[in-house]
Amino acid sequence: MSVLYHHPLSAGSRFVRLVMAEYGETAELIEIVPWERDDELLTLNPAGSVPILVDETDGPIVGAGVIGEYLAETRGSRVGEDTLMPTGAAERAEVRRLVSWFLGKLDDEVVGYLLTEKVFKRHAPSANGGGSPDAAAIRAARGNIRYHLRYIGYLVARRDCLAGRVVSFADLAAAAELSCADYLGEVPWEEDPTAKEWYARIKSRPSFRPILADAVRGSPPVTHYADLDF
Amino acid sequence: MSVLYHHPLSAGSRFVRLVMAEYGETAELIEIVPWERDDELLTLNPAGSVPILVDETDGPIVGAGVIGEYLAETRGSRVGEDTLMPTGAAERAEVRRLVSWFLGKLDDEVVGYLLTEKVFKRHAPSANGGGSPDAAAIRAARGNIRYHLRYIGYLVARRDCLAGRVVSFADLAAAAELSCADYLGEVPWEEDPTAKEWYARIKSRPSFRPILADAVRGSPPVTHYADLDF
Repeated sequence: MSVLYHHPLSAGSRFVRLVMAEYGETAELIEIVPWERDDELLTLNPAGSVPILVDETDGPIVGAGVIGEYLAETRGSRVGEDTLMPTGAAERAEVRRLVSWFLGKLDDEVVGYLLTEKVFKRHAPSANGGGSPDAAAIRAARGNIRYHLRYIGYLVARRDCLAGRVVSFADLAAAAELSCADYLGEVPWEEDPTAKEWYARIKSRPSFRPILADAVRGSPPVTHYADLDF
Repeated sequence: MSVLYHHPLSAGSRFVRLVMAEYGETAELIEIVPWERDDELLTLNPAGSVPILVDETDGPIVGAGVIGEYLAETRGSRVGEDTLMPTGAAERAEVRRLVSWFLGKLDDEVVGYLLTEKVFKRHAPSANGGGSPDAAAIRAARGNIRYHLRYIGYLVARRDCLAGRVVSFADLAAAAELSCADYLGEVPWEEDPTAKEWYARIKSRPSFRPILADAVRGSPPVTHYADLDF
């Protein structure tokens, strides 16, 4: 059986779990401790980050976007070649642009700050980066998430899903990121009803259920987190 | 004819120019000013960054990694399906991991700092981020480049090229990044003869010639920059 090294609040890991569930694929989940130096992890991925999928035949496949492409190439055909990833080159480029936007930019500008300041700093020993949250970083994240939410609303209003008319990797990437912010009660849903309606749709997919059951000890989710009607 | 929006010292843009040259593809080059807000650019790419390839039939394709995949899918067959991108899923994942490592991590930890501090701050008006270089950022870049160079040496010693036995996107991504640092005289080649020998090989490819002719007004390259025997 394949193994997925992950953290429940790593948005990239959530993206991979969603893709695997959509493709009807399972893996043993091994949870890492984000602030510990782990030599086994560094051997699998010199960047020391998750997600890492250790495929039972191909070995370690590293990084959320890379694992998505790998799963599309090796498992996508089980459920129809163009599930989650279209077949046309221009459409594929648009999916990839948005995956990179969400797993890169949204993560850098919003979700990374929130997790570091509100979760990791709280649980890590001070020698490993623990300490008081930086209010300025949280404020920056709260400002930035508003324009990401508007961009999602803008795309959905024109396309129905983020990269086109059907659900793709782009929707799973955006929803994986937002679900981490939502776990912390940090998504101002009332500001964009179109984005909220889209998230309710993605959140209702069976692939999302395990994500909604995630919990980090000492940092429980806000009450509406798992509600499909939030 | 397709159009490529780029900057001569944008490593991602250099990567795309290398891929296009390897595939025998040409595009009109339009140089952007990195510190100016450009509404035309923002329409093509909401992230406001280059490279952007405006393909003559498919329109804007955004981001270095995304353009690479797009070119492999649409132009790769001209020169043999597996040129620069292998056909096996695991091998493709390794190429993608390294492209992401170099265009992401090496750029964030080294090349981005060097260009911002040594070039852009010097030429930009103060209202757009111009000013004195930050010595701490340059010092960080100089520390970080050493372990990137060692990692390149490590991979080349085991594989001959970065992702395997033949030149792939991984080599072009790493060489595009290093070429920007080298333009500024910031690669300590003497520290890793294996990495240096690999760079000399990549630098000798015909696709590299236009990169070696690049010049930014007011910030000329160091003298050895274009030497194939450096």
